[in-house]
This record gives sequence, structure tokens and C-alpha cells, in this order.
Amino acid sequence: MVTLNSEEKKFYDAFWELKLKSGTHPPSIISVFDMMGGNSKTFVDACFLSNPYATSLFLEDFNKEIIEGGKLREYIEAYPPQNIEVAEHLTSVINVPVNNIFIGNGAIEIIQAVIHNFIKGKIVVNIPTFSSYYEYMKNKEDVIYYQLPKERNYSLNIDKYIAYIKEVRPDSIVIVNPNNPNGDYISLENITLILKELSFLTNIIIDESFIHFAYEDADFSMINTYNLLKQYPNLIVIKSLAKDFGIAGLRVGYAIMSEDKVSSLLATGYQWNIGGFANYFYRLYSRNDFSHAYDIVRKKYIMNTLMFINELSRIPEIKVYPSKANFALIELIDGSLSKEIMVKLLYTYGVYVRDCSDKIGLKGEFLRIASRTFEENMIILDALKDIFKNG
Amino acid sequence: MVTLNSEEKKFYDAFWELKLKSGTHPPSIISVFDMMGGNSKTFVDACFLSNPYATSLFLEDFNKEIIEGGKLREYIEAYPPQNIEVAEHLTSVINVPVNNIFIGNGAIEIIQAVIHNFIKGKIVVNIPTFSSYYEYMKNKEDVIYYQLPKERNYSLNIDKYIAYIKEVRPDSIVIVNPNNPNGDYISLENITLILKELSFLTNIIIDESFIHFAYEDADFSMINTYNLLKQYPNLIVIKSLAKDFGIAGLRVGYAIMSEDKVSSLLATGYQWNIGGFANYFYRLYSRNDFSHAYDIVRKKYIMNTLMFINELSRIPEIKVYPSKANFALIELIDGSLSKEIMVKLLYTYGVYVRDCSDKIGLKGEFLRIASRTFEENMIILDALKDIFKNG
Repeated sequence: MVTLNSEEKKFYDAFWELKLKSGTHPPSIISVFDMMGGNSKTFVDACFLSNPYATSLFLEDFNKEIIEGGKLREYIEAYPPQNIEVAEHLTSVINVPVNNIFIGNGAIEIIQAVIHNFIKGKIVVNIPTFSSYYEYMKNKEDVIYYQLPKERNYSLNIDKYIAYIKEVRPDSIVIVNPNNPNGDYISLENITLILKELSFLTNIIIDESFIHFAYEDADFSMINTYNLLKQYPNLIVIKSLAKDFGIAGLRVGYAIMSEDKVSSLLATGYQWNIGGFANYFYRLYSRNDFSHAYDIVRKKYIMNTLMFINELSRIPEIKVYPSKANFALIELIDGSLSKEIMVKLLYTYGVYVRDCSDKIGLKGEFLRIASRTFEENMIILDALKDIFKNG
Repeated sequence: MVTLNSEEKKFYDAFWELKLKSGTHPPSIISVFDMMGGNSKTFVDACFLSNPYATSLFLEDFNKEIIEGGKLREYIEAYPPQNIEVAEHLTSVINVPVNNIFIGNGAIEIIQAVIHNFIKGKIVVNIPTFSSYYEYMKNKEDVIYYQLPKERNYSLNIDKYIAYIKEVRPDSIVIVNPNNPNGDYISLENITLILKELSFLTNIIIDESFIHFAYEDADFSMINTYNLLKQYPNLIVIKSLAKDFGIAGLRVGYAIMSEDKVSSLLATGYQWNIGGFANYFYRLYSRNDFSHAYDIVRKKYIMNTLMFINELSRIPEIKVYPSKANFALIELIDGSLSKEIMVKLLYTYGVYVRDCSDKIGLKGEFLRIASRTFEENMIILDALKDIFKNG
């Protein structure tokens, strides 16, 4: 069992005070930097979840076209286009009609929009999962928590789940696939089964924010459920682009939903919810050269993550939960406390991970660790090994 | 009366088709560029409304600190802080307690949030004004239009207005000050009178998005109504930062409202609604050196706008409406059509202005023209003079 030294204890108090002020989620890395006095030692952000190779790819084009191309002023000064103009750029690359696309200021704005506008009764939320799905419900009594079983690694048993929903008959359900924080993946076949069996529901929300990191074949081919919308108009697919493209600061994401849902949202809002540089991203994404280059770094990152998770699972003091996302949920099984390990990793090793103490539905001491570049993953692994070696 | 040549007529059709596809407002300048084939002739954006000197000021710091400072990747890759963390930066510069500040993804997100969450009955909207205030109402029957009189240059008669509201007793009212599209300004004294007389209303929304361009003294001192909130908790002040700081592409704006309103919004949403570079702006704005430098370019721009409006009013074919904003509403009084003059200005002179045909509450042929740099204003003036000379 690992304990903190006196320096780390002091930092522990300061960090949890900052966390309290930061809202309901971990403080942003920029705020953490500030608190640490901006010291320049190696710093690995394995708390937030994104593909660093994709960030580099985006930056190449951004530097060439925006900075060197002299377009910085234009993108900062000008009003970005309205929602539907931006959707026009996305339609070809994701192969979905423009009227079924809703562009969000990050997926989080879409989660908020969907929950506040389309949920008209009870919603079943599997836990543990991304907390906004229950936090954003105005009437908390309308949330039905469906506990994923720890003994099955918090994975979903499809048959039991379908039977449960048929019995409870809520208004809506939500499935994050792969799930956050454990990375459990539900196959396209099983998602199709859920849609087929539960077509009586008002809304079936599938959050595919991490699906670019999942795979079903040896080529790591891209997966999505978009073409099921025609058959199942109660489907709403929510997709963050912050993780896969490594551009969380630009606030990018979209949803696929029925035409009438898109037009009802656009009728009374969401006109200029996309920033200038987000607009640049959508234009870039629609280009074949970029999306081709992206697919290469996507696959490189998946392989990288596989190696990382494999190495993590060799550390005896932790249990690694099976994941098809770009992160691993790990459980401390040597008696250490997740809040303390989190602080030690940050303060002494410069590695920022997600303490999961506030995640409802998890029972035990958990951390969520994102996969980064190969070199950064080595730093994370070395830090963990060092911590458990020195106790 | 001015007419179009055959080239301009062709462009006329193409432009209004783009407009139709762009949503309810003029197409963004980036989309207009695309349509014009990206030709490189002089182009003046006098449609959207912003201080170009402030854009230059912001770009100086952005270039130095973000680009040359090597922080571009950090701001693109990392999740921005949550709403309340950002409000911490703003609290000192605007001298308002942090719990009364709500940060928006542009003022437009706040307008949407306020209308969808706090208006519980009828709202009186003065027309002509910024259209989202009535467009965003889900129940259109709850909008009461209060026509501003053309014979008084679409300005508000305070006494009559107060008497009207007392008689109608709606749930809420909204006043854009200075008003868009005519620039009419209501003094702080009269705003205070409105708040005092109409304290029975659930919400009094004052939109001060253009107030940095208004003035009541010879020093052009900054005006706002923030300290009236203590006395009148039904006050909601909405403030875009896109116009005064010339950074519409970053999506920046905030509102001042009662603590319970702020916390009710943050309880079920708006957590990560601020982009990375918007976060950088708020940090910059909180610094004395920047806000001091900003005040200089603000005043320079006001003087510039005064000169521009003065020159405009010497053109006999137009009537210029009195304005304390950074634009002028002009009426074509020689029989010319606003849509045609708009297209001629854009196609032949590279000057993009706002045709006001779709603004309800205006009776006649109107254009809204933004003030730009001294040199760009000269181009606009020369173009208008040329058009009316050549017919």
C-alpha cells in the first residue's frame, strides 16, 4: 500500500481545493499548470482523453494554412457560419444527409440539448458512465440507474438489459459505446439487437464519442450506427470529435438524429454555436487528404493503446479492466487510495490521471488512465511501477 | 435610383440563393469568400459589427504569447476550464461577484438560455431589434411586438413605454441598448427609471452588446448597469464581447444575473461551453496592461465611427439614423432597393453590408453599415458616392 510524503500531502490539500472550485469534474490542465506554478518538468496529461498523434496532424495543417497562410485574423475576427452551413461540410465525410446532422459546441452541448428537449419521462442510465447523462436531467427523479455488474467488469449483459428495459418501459435509454470510464464495447450486432428489440422507446441515445478507437476486424475499420437511423428513427447518435482528433480546445462534436429533431433544435437556437477554428476543422475533415492521413494516425494510436494496456496489466498491484477505448480503468488492489495515487502521480511524476472517487456505480479504488504517445505511455508506466516499488 | 448591370444581376441570384441556405441571417464572410471564388480584390466586411483595432490588439498578444510562446498545441489539445473557472478571470475586470457571472459561448448562447429557462409568459420585444429575441421563443404567441416609431427614428419614448408595460403587464421585457439595427441609445438614467418603475416584471433583459461604443461624457467613459442588479434582482444584462473586442470567431460573451439564475443554469449544463482560445481571451482581459490598451483602441474607434457617420450623412440619397453604436442604419430615399445596393456594393466594390429587408419593424429600404478602420470607411464612403453618382 502506497502512502504520501509530507510534500505530497500539502499538494493533496491544494489540489482538492482547486477541484472543489473547478466544478463537478477535474480541473483543466491549464488550471493545474497555474497551481503548480507553471514549472517546466515533464508533464503528461493522461486525465483527459485524446489522440496526441491526431493533434499533431491537425496542427500541421493549421500551421500551414492558418498561421503561415495568413488566415489567423480572418478566423478570429469573422462570425463563423451558422449550424447548417457547417453540417454541409460534414455530410460527405460521414455519409449522412445534411438534415440528419446537428453540430454542437462539443458533444456536451448536444447531450444538454437532447436531455432538455427530447426526454419526456424516465431515462435509464447504466452506471458507471459519463456523468452528464444523469447530472443534466432537471428532474433527478426521472433518472433510473442501471448498475453494471462489477463481477462482469462493468460490462453490459445484452439479454438481461433488454428484458429489464421491456419490463420497466422508460421513455428513453442511453448507452455510451465504448463506455467511459471502463472502455467496455458493445458490438454493432448487439447495438442493432437493442434497437430492434426496444423500438417502442421514445429515444435510444448511443454515445459513440470513443468509437474511433474501437474495432471489430483486423484492419481496425471504422464503425458507426448511422445507417440504422432510417430503420429506427428513435436513434440519436452523439459523437464527440475532441478525443479522436485531439482538439478538445476547439469544441467539436455532432449528432445524428431524425430530421424533425434537428429542425426543432435549430428553430429556436444553436445558430452560431461553432467557433471559427472549429469551422476550419470541419472544412479540413471534409477533405480526402486529411481524412486519409487521419485514419493512419487513428490506427497507429489504437496499436499504441493495445501495447499500453498490455503493459499496464503486468503491474501486479492493479487490475486493468478490458477496454476498447483510448483509456484503461484500473483498480488499486493493494490497499492504496485512488486520490493519493492520483496526487502522487501528478506532484512527483508529472502524470495527470483521473481519480474516479466521484463516479457513481464504481465500488473500490479506481483510476482512469488515458493512452498517450508511445513515449508518454512509457513515462506513465515507469511512474506507476516506481510508485508501487517504493510504496 | 440605382440599378444593376447584367453581371451584378447574375451575382444577385447566386447571393440570395446562398443566403437561403445559410439560415436566418446573412452568410458568414468566409462563405461569401468561397462563393466569390476567393478573388483577392479589396474586401471590406461592414456587415458584421466589430472593432478592427481591437482585433489587431488581441492578435498582437495572441501572436506573442500563443504562437511564438509555443502554446498553440496546449490551447487546441486541452479541455478548456469549466464555466465557473472562467468567470473567476472576469470578476475583477468587470467588478461583479463571480456568482453573478454566467459565461456564454457568445452572447447568443445566453440569449437562448435566458429565453428557454427564465421567460415564463409573455415577453415584450421592441421592433426593429436583434431578431433572436423573438425567434428563440418556443411559443411565438408569447411575443408581444412593440413597434418603435419611424417618425422618431425608431427610438424609444421612455414614458410611453413604461405606461404601456404597466398596462400590458407581461412576464418579461427586453431592451437592446444601443439598439441593433438603428443604434438608438437609452441613457443610464432612463434605464434606471425603467428598472424602478417596472420592478414587478419577472425579467428585465438589457442587452449591452454594443455599449462599449456608447458614451455619456467627453471622455467616452465606459457605461454599464451591473451595480443595479443588487437593487433590481430581475435584471439580466447580456453582453457580447465579439463586437467590442473584434473576436467573433472565438465565441465570447457573458451575462450578469442573480446568483440563483446562474446556479440554476450551471446545475444542468453549460460546463465546457468555452473554447480554448476564448479562455485565453478571458485571462488576457483580466490583465491591467491589456484592458488599458483596449480602452485606447475603444476610444479611437468611437471617434472614427463619429467621423464615418458624419460623412455618411452628407450623401443626399440616403438618410442616416442617429446611432451610438458602431454602425449606422441608412435608408435609401432615392427609390433604390436595399437588396440591389447591397449586391452592387459587394460584387462591384467588395464592400459587404447588411441588407435589412428581413428585419421586422422597419418600413422602407434599409441597409446597416458597420464602421471599420479609417481607411476601410473611406472605401465604403467612396463606393456609396460612386454608386449614387453613376446611378
